Amino acid sequence: MSAKVRLYVEHPLGQGQSVPLERDQAHYLFGVMRLAVGARVALFNGQDGEWQAEVAEAGKRGGVLVCVDQSRPLQMPPDLWLLFAPIKKARTDFIVEKAAEMGAARIVPVQTEFTNSDRIRQDRLQAHAVEAAEQCGGTYVPEVTELTKLGRLLDAWPAGRQLMFCDEAEVGSALQLAQTERGLPWAILIGPEGGFSDRERTRLAALPSSHVVSLGPRILRADTAAVAAMTIWQKALGDWG
Amino acid sequence: MSAKVRLYVEHPLGQGQSVPLERDQAHYLFGVMRLAVGARVALFNGQDGEWQAEVAEAGKRGGVLVCVDQSRPLQMPPDLWLLFAPIKKARTDFIVEKAAEMGAARIVPVQTEFTNSDRIRQDRLQAHAVEAAEQCGGTYVPEVTELTKLGRLLDAWPAGRQLMFCDEAEVGSALQLAQTERGLPWAILIGPEGGFSDRERTRLAALPSSHVVSLGPRILRADTAAVAAMTIWQKALGDWG
Repeated sequence: MSAKVRLYVEHPLGQGQSVPLERDQAHYLFGVMRLAVGARVALFNGQDGEWQAEVAEAGKRGGVLVCVDQSRPLQMPPDLWLLFAPIKKARTDFIVEKAAEMGAARIVPVQTEFTNSDRIRQDRLQAHAVEAAEQCGGTYVPEVTELTKLGRLLDAWPAGRQLMFCDEAEVGSALQLAQTERGLPWAILIGPEGGFSDRERTRLAALPSSHVVSLGPRILRADTAAVAAMTIWQKALGDWG
Repeated sequence: MSAKVRLYVEHPLGQGQSVPLERDQAHYLFGVMRLAVGARVALFNGQDGEWQAEVAEAGKRGGVLVCVDQSRPLQMPPDLWLLFAPIKKARTDFIVEKAAEMGAARIVPVQTEFTNSDRIRQDRLQAHAVEAAEQCGGTYVPEVTELTKLGRLLDAWPAGRQLMFCDEAEVGSALQLAQTERGLPWAILIGPEGGFSDRERTRLAALPSSHVVSLGPRILRADTAAVAAMTIWQKALGDWG
Protein backbone atom coordinates (compact mmCIF):
# COMPACT_ATOMS: atom_id res chain seq x y z
CA MET A 1 0.00 0.00 0.00
CA SER A 2 1.24 3.44 -0.93
CA ALA A 3 1.64 6.14 1.76
CA LYS A 4 -0.92 8.95 2.00
CA VAL A 5 1.50 11.40 3.64
CA ARG A 6 4.25 12.93 1.47
CA LEU A 7 7.13 14.74 3.07
CA TYR A 8 10.04 16.72 1.68
CA VAL A 9 13.28 16.07 3.57
CA GLU A 10 16.77 17.44 3.20
CA HIS A 11 18.49 14.09 3.57
CA PRO A 12 19.80 11.43 1.17
CA LEU A 13 17.28 8.70 0.33
CA GLY A 14 18.12 5.12 -0.67
CA GLN A 15 17.53 1.46 0.16
CA GLY A 16 17.64 0.96 3.97
CA GLN A 17 18.62 4.60 4.52
CA SER A 18 17.65 6.04 7.95
CA VAL A 19 16.17 9.53 7.86
CA PRO A 20 16.09 11.46 11.13
CA LEU A 21 13.16 13.85 11.53
CA GLU A 22 13.23 17.43 12.64
CA ARG A 23 11.00 18.56 15.45
CA ASP A 24 8.25 20.10 13.27
CA GLN A 25 8.21 17.08 10.97
CA ALA A 26 7.84 14.76 13.99
CA HIS A 27 5.03 16.97 15.29
CA TYR A 28 3.25 16.78 11.92
CA LEU A 29 3.62 13.01 11.47
CA PHE A 30 3.00 11.85 15.03
CA GLY A 31 1.00 14.71 16.58
CA VAL A 32 -1.18 15.87 13.67
CA MET A 33 -1.36 12.80 11.41
CA ARG A 34 -1.17 10.36 14.36
CA LEU A 35 1.19 7.93 12.64
CA ALA A 36 2.69 5.14 14.76
CA VAL A 37 5.78 2.93 14.40
CA GLY A 38 5.41 0.81 11.27
CA ALA A 39 3.31 3.40 9.36
CA ARG A 40 4.26 4.35 5.79
CA VAL A 41 5.33 7.83 4.64
CA ALA A 42 6.40 8.91 1.14
CA LEU A 43 9.64 10.92 1.11
CA PHE A 44 11.37 12.98 -1.56
CA ASN A 45 14.36 15.29 -1.43
CA GLY A 46 14.44 16.78 -4.92
CA GLN A 47 17.26 14.44 -5.98
CA ASP A 48 16.60 10.76 -5.27
CA GLY A 49 12.98 10.37 -6.46
CA GLU A 50 10.16 9.28 -4.15
CA TRP A 51 10.73 6.61 -1.50
CA GLN A 52 8.29 4.71 0.67
CA ALA A 53 9.61 4.84 4.20
CA GLU A 54 8.51 3.21 7.44
CA VAL A 55 8.34 4.87 10.83
CA ALA A 56 11.06 3.20 12.95
CA GLU A 57 11.01 5.58 15.93
CA ALA A 58 8.29 8.08 16.84
CA GLY A 59 8.76 10.72 19.52
CA LYS A 60 7.45 14.14 20.44
CA ARG A 61 10.61 15.93 19.39
CA GLY A 62 11.91 13.68 16.68
CA GLY A 63 11.85 10.27 15.10
CA VAL A 64 13.45 8.09 12.47
CA LEU A 65 12.11 6.83 9.16
CA VAL A 66 13.72 4.01 7.19
CA CYS A 67 13.49 3.91 3.39
CA VAL A 68 11.91 0.67 2.13
CA ASP A 69 11.71 1.06 -1.63
CA GLN A 70 11.66 3.68 -4.35
CA SER A 71 8.09 4.38 -5.53
CA ARG A 72 8.99 6.89 -8.26
CA PRO A 73 12.17 8.01 -9.95
CA LEU A 74 13.24 11.66 -9.88
CA GLN A 75 11.28 13.60 -12.49
CA MET A 76 12.95 16.90 -13.27
CA PRO A 77 10.65 19.61 -14.62
CA PRO A 78 11.54 21.22 -17.96
CA ASP A 79 14.12 24.04 -17.74
CA LEU A 80 11.52 26.77 -17.25
CA TRP A 81 11.85 29.78 -14.98
CA LEU A 82 8.82 31.73 -13.82
CA LEU A 83 9.54 35.45 -13.36
CA PHE A 84 6.86 37.55 -11.68
CA ALA A 85 6.49 40.89 -9.92
CA PRO A 86 5.37 40.31 -6.32
CA ILE A 87 1.96 41.72 -5.46
CA LYS A 88 -0.19 41.47 -2.36
CA LYS A 89 0.97 38.79 0.07
CA ALA A 90 -1.79 36.24 -0.50
CA ARG A 91 -1.50 36.43 -4.29
CA THR A 92 2.29 36.22 -4.19
CA ASP A 93 1.96 33.03 -2.13
CA PHE A 94 -0.50 31.72 -4.70
CA ILE A 95 1.82 32.43 -7.62
CA VAL A 96 4.63 30.49 -5.96
CA GLU A 97 2.29 27.60 -5.16
CA LYS A 98 0.94 27.56 -8.73
CA ALA A 99 4.41 27.77 -10.29
CA ALA A 100 5.51 24.72 -8.29
CA GLU A 101 2.36 22.76 -9.22
CA MET A 102 2.66 23.73 -12.88
CA GLY A 103 6.26 22.53 -13.02
CA ALA A 104 8.56 25.54 -12.96
CA ALA A 105 12.19 24.65 -12.33
CA ARG A 106 12.96 28.03 -10.77
CA ILE A 107 10.82 30.87 -9.41
CA VAL A 108 12.24 34.37 -9.69
CA PRO A 109 10.50 37.35 -8.02
CA VAL A 110 11.39 40.48 -10.01
CA GLN A 111 11.15 44.14 -9.15
CA THR A 112 9.84 46.21 -12.06
CA GLU A 113 9.41 49.97 -12.34
CA PHE A 114 5.73 49.69 -11.40
CA THR A 115 6.18 47.04 -8.68
CA ASN A 116 5.23 48.26 -5.23
CA SER A 117 7.02 45.75 -3.06
CA ASP A 118 10.73 46.17 -2.50
CA ARG A 119 11.20 43.06 -0.39
CA ILE A 120 9.86 39.54 -0.10
CA ARG A 121 10.09 36.85 2.54
CA GLN A 122 12.17 34.47 0.48
CA ASP A 123 12.16 31.74 3.16
CA ARG A 124 8.36 31.83 3.45
CA LEU A 125 7.93 31.64 -0.33
CA GLN A 126 10.36 28.71 -0.48
CA ALA A 127 8.28 26.94 2.17
CA HIS A 128 5.19 27.44 -0.03
CA ALA A 129 7.03 25.84 -2.95
CA VAL A 130 7.94 22.84 -0.74
CA GLU A 131 4.34 22.46 0.41
CA ALA A 132 3.04 22.65 -3.16
CA ALA A 133 5.54 19.96 -4.23
CA GLU A 134 4.40 17.74 -1.34
CA GLN A 135 0.76 18.21 -2.42
CA CYS A 136 1.11 17.81 -6.16
CA GLY A 137 3.11 14.61 -6.11
CA GLY A 138 6.22 16.18 -7.62
CA THR A 139 9.65 14.80 -6.82
CA TYR A 140 11.38 18.16 -7.36
CA VAL A 141 11.13 21.48 -5.50
CA PRO A 142 11.76 24.67 -7.50
CA GLU A 143 14.14 27.16 -5.94
CA VAL A 144 12.64 30.56 -5.09
CA THR A 145 15.35 33.15 -5.61
CA GLU A 146 15.81 36.52 -3.94
CA LEU A 147 13.94 39.55 -5.33
CA THR A 148 15.93 40.82 -8.32
CA LYS A 149 15.57 44.04 -10.32
CA LEU A 150 14.23 43.28 -13.80
CA GLY A 151 16.83 45.57 -15.39
CA ARG A 152 19.68 43.77 -13.67
CA LEU A 153 18.26 40.40 -14.70
CA LEU A 154 18.04 41.50 -18.35
CA ASP A 155 21.60 42.92 -18.25
CA ALA A 156 22.87 39.43 -17.43
CA TRP A 157 20.29 37.49 -19.44
CA PRO A 158 21.70 34.02 -20.26
CA ALA A 159 22.43 33.62 -23.97
CA GLY A 160 19.97 31.21 -25.54
CA ARG A 161 17.34 31.30 -22.78
CA GLN A 162 14.05 32.13 -24.49
CA LEU A 163 11.72 34.61 -22.79
CA MET A 164 7.93 34.42 -23.08
CA PHE A 165 6.64 37.77 -22.05
CA CYS A 166 2.98 38.33 -21.34
CA ASP A 167 1.88 41.87 -21.95
CA GLU A 168 -1.63 43.22 -21.51
CA ALA A 169 -0.87 45.83 -24.14
CA GLU A 170 -0.41 43.04 -26.67
CA VAL A 171 -3.99 41.79 -26.79
CA GLY A 172 -4.49 39.90 -30.01
CA SER A 173 -0.99 38.86 -31.01
CA ALA A 174 -0.63 35.26 -32.06
CA LEU A 175 1.38 32.64 -30.30
CA GLN A 176 3.76 30.54 -32.36
CA LEU A 177 5.58 28.80 -29.55
CA ALA A 178 5.15 25.40 -31.06
CA GLN A 179 7.38 26.43 -33.97
CA THR A 180 10.35 27.25 -31.73
CA GLU A 181 12.95 24.64 -31.06
CA ARG A 182 12.21 22.12 -28.32
CA GLY A 183 14.66 21.55 -25.48
CA LEU A 184 15.82 25.17 -25.16
CA PRO A 185 15.89 26.81 -21.73
CA TRP A 186 12.95 29.18 -21.24
CA ALA A 187 11.55 31.77 -18.88
CA ILE A 188 8.03 33.19 -18.59
CA LEU A 189 7.70 36.76 -17.36
CA ILE A 190 4.37 37.84 -15.86
CA GLY A 191 3.98 41.60 -15.75
CA PRO A 192 3.07 43.57 -12.63
CA GLU A 193 -0.58 44.58 -12.13
CA GLY A 194 0.33 48.14 -13.12
CA GLY A 195 1.83 46.89 -16.40
CA PHE A 196 5.37 47.37 -17.66
CA SER A 197 6.86 50.82 -18.16
CA ASP A 198 7.51 51.92 -21.75
CA ARG A 199 11.25 51.56 -21.14
CA GLU A 200 10.81 48.00 -19.89
CA ARG A 201 8.53 47.13 -22.78
CA THR A 202 11.05 48.41 -25.33
CA ARG A 203 13.87 46.57 -23.63
CA LEU A 204 11.94 43.30 -23.48
CA ALA A 205 10.88 43.54 -27.10
CA ALA A 206 14.50 44.18 -28.14
CA LEU A 207 15.77 41.03 -26.46
CA PRO A 208 16.63 38.65 -29.34
CA SER A 209 15.10 35.66 -27.58
CA SER A 210 11.82 37.29 -26.49
CA HIS A 211 8.38 36.07 -27.55
CA VAL A 212 5.38 38.27 -26.79
CA VAL A 213 2.17 36.35 -26.18
CA SER A 214 -1.42 37.28 -25.56
CA LEU A 215 -3.59 35.70 -22.90
CA GLY A 216 -6.95 36.47 -24.48
CA PRO A 217 -9.28 39.47 -24.58
CA ARG A 218 -9.82 39.87 -20.83
CA ILE A 219 -7.22 41.29 -18.45
CA LEU A 220 -6.00 38.53 -16.16
CA ARG A 221 -4.77 39.02 -12.63
CA ALA A 222 -1.11 38.11 -12.19
CA ASP A 223 -1.83 34.78 -10.50
CA THR A 224 -4.32 33.75 -13.20
CA ALA A 225 -1.89 34.88 -15.91
CA ALA A 226 0.90 32.79 -14.38
CA VAL A 227 -1.16 29.58 -14.57
CA ALA A 228 -2.50 30.38 -18.07
CA ALA A 229 0.96 31.19 -19.46
CA MET A 230 2.51 28.08 -17.96
CA THR A 231 -0.33 25.95 -19.35
CA ILE A 232 0.29 27.27 -22.85
CA TRP A 233 4.02 26.67 -22.52
CA GLN A 234 3.71 23.19 -20.99
CA LYS A 235 1.29 22.10 -23.72
CA ALA A 236 3.46 23.46 -26.53
CA LEU A 237 6.98 22.75 -25.29
CA GLY A 238 6.94 21.19 -21.84
CA ASP A 239 6.12 17.89 -20.18
CA TRP A 240 2.34 17.88 -20.70
CA GLY A 241 2.87 15.97 -23.92
CA MET B 1 -9.85 60.14 -21.15
CA SER B 2 -11.11 56.71 -20.21
CA ALA B 3 -12.40 56.05 -16.68
CA LYS B 4 -10.23 54.14 -14.21
CA VAL B 5 -13.18 52.93 -12.14
CA ARG B 6 -15.38 50.20 -13.62
CA LEU B 7 -18.74 49.43 -12.10
CA TYR B 8 -21.35 46.76 -12.78
CA VAL B 9 -24.91 48.11 -12.54
CA GLU B 10 -28.29 46.46 -12.91
CA HIS B 11 -29.76 49.23 -15.04
CA PRO B 12 -30.18 49.88 -18.78
CA LEU B 13 -27.31 51.83 -20.36
CA GLY B 14 -27.55 54.06 -23.42
CA GLN B 15 -26.90 57.56 -24.75
CA GLY B 16 -27.95 60.14 -22.13
CA GLN B 17 -29.32 57.45 -19.83
CA SER B 18 -29.41 58.36 -16.11
CA VAL B 19 -28.26 55.62 -13.77
CA PRO B 20 -29.21 55.93 -10.09
CA LEU B 21 -26.68 54.50 -7.66
CA GLU B 22 -27.33 52.23 -4.73
CA ARG B 23 -26.03 53.14 -1.32
CA ASP B 24 -22.95 50.87 -1.39
CA GLN B 25 -22.06 52.00 -4.91
CA ALA B 26 -22.28 55.65 -3.82
CA HIS B 27 -20.11 54.86 -0.82
CA TYR B 28 -17.51 53.20 -3.07
CA LEU B 29 -17.42 55.96 -5.70
CA PHE B 30 -17.66 59.01 -3.47
CA GLY B 31 -16.39 57.77 -0.09
CA VAL B 32 -13.63 55.34 -1.09
CA MET B 33 -12.60 56.54 -4.57
CA ARG B 34 -13.33 60.21 -3.75
CA LEU B 35 -14.94 60.97 -7.10
CA ALA B 36 -16.70 64.32 -7.49
CA VAL B 37 -19.40 65.62 -9.85
CA GLY B 38 -18.03 65.53 -13.41
CA ALA B 39 -15.74 62.54 -12.83
CA ARG B 40 -15.83 59.64 -15.27
CA VAL B 41 -16.82 56.06 -14.43
CA ALA B 42 -17.05 53.08 -16.78
CA LEU B 43 -20.33 51.16 -16.49
CA PHE B 44 -21.48 47.79 -17.80
CA ASN B 45 -24.59 45.74 -17.12
CA GLY B 46 -23.86 42.51 -18.97
CA GLN B 47 -26.12 43.52 -21.88
CA ASP B 48 -25.35 46.96 -23.32
CA GLY B 49 -21.54 46.92 -23.53
CA GLU B 50 -19.33 49.37 -21.64
CA TRP B 51 -20.35 53.02 -21.27
CA GLN B 52 -18.40 56.03 -20.09
CA ALA B 53 -20.59 57.87 -17.62
CA GLU B 54 -20.25 61.14 -15.79
CA VAL B 55 -21.10 61.76 -12.14
CA ALA B 56 -24.13 64.13 -12.18
CA GLU B 57 -25.06 63.94 -8.49
CA ALA B 58 -22.89 62.69 -5.64
CA GLY B 59 -24.24 62.04 -2.15
CA LYS B 60 -23.51 59.90 0.86
CA ARG B 61 -26.43 57.60 0.30
CA GLY B 62 -26.84 57.77 -3.43
CA GLY B 63 -26.03 59.58 -6.63
CA VAL B 64 -26.70 59.68 -10.34
CA LEU B 65 -24.45 58.88 -13.28
CA VAL B 66 -25.26 59.90 -16.86
CA CYS B 67 -24.04 57.79 -19.80
CA VAL B 68 -21.93 59.82 -22.25
CA ASP B 69 -20.77 57.32 -24.86
CA GLN B 70 -20.23 53.66 -25.41
CA SER B 71 -16.58 52.72 -25.03
CA ARG B 72 -16.93 49.03 -25.90
CA PRO B 73 -19.66 46.87 -27.38
CA LEU B 74 -20.99 43.88 -25.47
CA GLN B 75 -18.61 40.97 -25.86
CA MET B 76 -20.30 37.71 -24.97
CA PRO B 77 -17.96 34.93 -23.86
CA PRO B 78 -18.09 31.62 -25.73
CA ASP B 79 -20.86 29.25 -24.57
CA LEU B 80 -18.71 27.55 -21.96
CA TRP B 81 -19.87 26.39 -18.53
CA LEU B 82 -17.42 25.73 -15.72
CA LEU B 83 -18.55 22.96 -13.38
CA PHE B 84 -16.59 22.45 -10.19
CA ALA B 85 -16.97 20.78 -6.79
CA PRO B 86 -16.78 23.45 -4.06
CA ILE B 87 -13.85 23.08 -1.71
CA LYS B 88 -12.55 25.25 1.11
CA LYS B 89 -14.06 28.73 1.14
CA ALA B 90 -11.07 30.72 -0.07
CA ARG B 91 -10.37 28.35 -2.95
CA THR B 92 -14.03 28.26 -3.99
CA ASP B 93 -13.97 32.06 -4.16
CA PHE B 94 -10.83 31.85 -6.28
CA ILE B 95 -12.36 29.38 -8.71
CA VAL B 96 -15.34 31.68 -9.29
CA GLU B 97 -13.05 34.70 -9.75
CA LYS B 98 -10.80 32.75 -12.16
CA ALA B 99 -13.76 31.39 -14.14
CA ALA B 100 -15.08 34.93 -14.67
CA GLU B 101 -11.64 36.24 -15.71
CA MET B 102 -11.06 33.32 -18.04
CA GLY B 103 -14.38 33.88 -19.80
CA ALA B 104 -16.86 31.28 -18.57
CA ALA B 105 -20.46 32.04 -19.55
CA ARG B 106 -21.88 30.17 -16.57
CA ILE B 107 -20.42 28.83 -13.33
CA VAL B 108 -22.01 25.70 -11.88
CA PRO B 109 -21.03 24.42 -8.41
CA VAL B 110 -21.63 20.65 -8.37
CA GLN B 111 -21.93 18.20 -5.53
CA THR B 112 -20.10 14.94 -6.23
CA GLU B 113 -19.94 11.77 -4.15
CA PHE B 114 -16.62 12.85 -2.64
CA THR B 115 -17.53 16.54 -2.19
CA ASN B 116 -17.61 17.61 1.44
CA SER B 117 -19.68 20.76 1.19
CA ASP B 118 -23.43 20.42 0.92
CA ARG B 119 -24.17 24.11 0.62
CA ILE B 120 -22.67 27.27 -0.86
CA ARG B 121 -23.31 30.99 -0.44
CA GLN B 122 -24.61 31.55 -3.95
CA ASP B 123 -25.04 35.32 -3.45
CA ARG B 124 -21.48 35.72 -2.20
CA LEU B 125 -20.07 33.72 -5.12
CA GLN B 126 -22.14 35.80 -7.57
CA ALA B 127 -20.66 38.96 -6.00
CA HIS B 128 -17.16 37.53 -6.62
CA ALA B 129 -18.03 36.98 -10.27
CA VAL B 130 -19.23 40.61 -10.55
CA GLU B 131 -16.03 41.90 -8.94
CA ALA B 132 -13.88 39.78 -11.27
CA ALA B 133 -15.78 41.13 -14.29
CA GLU B 134 -15.22 44.70 -13.06
CA GLN B 135 -11.49 44.00 -12.67
CA CYS B 136 -10.82 42.11 -15.88
CA GLY B 137 -12.49 44.56 -18.23
CA GLY B 138 -15.22 42.15 -19.29
CA THR B 139 -18.62 43.43 -20.37
CA TYR B 140 -20.41 40.26 -19.27
CA VAL B 141 -20.95 38.68 -15.84
CA PRO B 142 -21.31 34.89 -15.69
CA GLU B 143 -24.21 33.57 -13.66
CA VAL B 144 -23.28 31.44 -10.64
CA THR B 145 -25.96 28.79 -10.23
CA GLU B 146 -27.12 26.99 -7.10
CA LEU B 147 -25.24 23.89 -5.94
CA THR B 148 -26.48 20.96 -8.02
CA LYS B 149 -25.88 17.23 -7.61
CA LEU B 150 -23.64 15.94 -10.41
CA GLY B 151 -25.91 12.94 -10.97
CA ARG B 152 -28.95 15.16 -11.43
CA LEU B 153 -27.03 17.41 -13.82
CA LEU B 154 -25.97 14.44 -15.94
CA ASP B 155 -29.53 13.04 -15.94
CA ALA B 156 -30.67 16.22 -17.68
CA TRP B 157 -27.48 16.85 -19.69
CA PRO B 158 -28.35 19.04 -22.71
CA ALA B 159 -28.05 17.17 -25.98
CA GLY B 160 -25.07 18.42 -27.94
CA ARG B 161 -23.26 20.15 -25.08
CA GLN B 162 -19.71 18.79 -25.07
CA LEU B 163 -18.12 17.98 -21.72
CA MET B 164 -14.39 18.28 -21.08
CA PHE B 165 -13.72 16.26 -18.01
CA CYS B 166 -10.42 16.53 -16.18
CA ASP B 167 -9.53 13.39 -14.29
CA GLU B 168 -6.38 12.85 -12.27
CA ALA B 169 -6.66 9.15 -12.97
CA GLU B 170 -6.22 9.92 -16.66
CA VAL B 171 -2.63 11.16 -16.55
CA GLY B 172 -1.11 10.80 -19.97
CA SER B 173 -4.13 10.76 -22.26
CA ALA B 174 -3.92 13.01 -25.27
CA LEU B 175 -6.06 16.04 -25.97
CA GLN B 176 -7.63 16.36 -29.37
CA LEU B 177 -9.97 19.24 -28.68
CA ALA B 178 -8.86 21.13 -31.73
CA GLN B 179 -10.34 18.44 -33.95
CA THR B 180 -13.84 18.84 -32.52
CA GLU B 181 -16.31 21.10 -34.19
CA ARG B 182 -16.11 24.80 -33.34
CA GLY B 183 -19.15 26.70 -32.13
CA LEU B 184 -20.67 23.88 -30.08
CA PRO B 185 -21.76 24.53 -26.50
CA TRP B 186 -19.25 23.16 -24.00
CA ALA B 187 -18.73 22.54 -20.31
CA ILE B 188 -15.55 21.87 -18.36
CA LEU B 189 -15.85 19.72 -15.24
CA ILE B 190 -13.14 19.99 -12.60
CA GLY B 191 -13.12 17.03 -10.22
CA PRO B 192 -13.20 17.32 -6.44
CA GLU B 193 -9.91 17.08 -4.54
CA GLY B 194 -10.85 13.56 -3.46
CA GLY B 195 -11.35 12.55 -7.10
CA PHE B 196 -14.46 11.13 -8.74
CA SER B 197 -16.06 7.91 -7.50
CA ASP B 198 -15.84 4.88 -9.79
CA ARG B 199 -19.55 5.21 -10.48
CA GLU B 200 -19.15 8.86 -11.50
CA ARG B 201 -16.14 8.09 -13.63
CA THR B 202 -18.02 5.35 -15.49
CA ARG B 203 -20.99 7.61 -16.00
CA LEU B 204 -18.92 10.49 -17.29
CA ALA B 205 -16.97 8.28 -19.66
CA ALA B 206 -20.24 6.85 -21.02
CA LEU B 207 -21.63 10.28 -21.89
CA PRO B 208 -21.52 10.47 -25.72
CA SER B 209 -20.23 14.05 -25.69
CA SER B 210 -17.50 13.63 -23.05
CA HIS B 211 -13.82 14.31 -23.68
CA VAL B 212 -11.33 13.19 -21.05
CA VAL B 213 -8.23 15.37 -20.85
CA SER B 214 -5.01 15.30 -18.89
CA LEU B 215 -3.48 18.30 -17.19
CA GLY B 216 0.10 17.07 -17.07
CA PRO B 217 2.13 14.78 -14.83
CA ARG B 218 1.63 16.67 -11.55
CA ILE B 219 -1.62 16.66 -9.57
CA LEU B 220 -3.14 20.14 -9.73
CA ARG B 221 -5.28 21.70 -7.03
CA ALA B 222 -8.83 22.37 -8.18
CA ASP B 223 -8.30 26.13 -8.63
CA THR B 224 -5.12 25.59 -10.65
CA ALA B 225 -6.84 22.90 -12.71
CA ALA B 226 -9.75 25.26 -13.48
CA VAL B 227 -7.44 27.91 -14.96
CA ALA B 228 -5.31 25.35 -16.83
CA ALA B 229 -8.34 23.59 -18.34
CA MET B 230 -9.97 26.87 -19.40
CA THR B 231 -6.68 28.01 -20.97
CA ILE B 232 -6.49 24.85 -23.06
CA TRP B 233 -10.11 25.22 -24.12
CA GLN B 234 -9.91 28.95 -24.89
CA LYS B 235 -6.79 28.44 -27.01
CA ALA B 236 -8.26 25.52 -28.94
CA LEU B 237 -11.90 26.51 -29.32
CA GLY B 238 -12.63 29.79 -27.55
CA ASP B 239 -11.99 33.50 -27.96
CA TRP B 240 -8.21 33.51 -27.41
CA GLY B 241 -7.76 33.11 -31.14
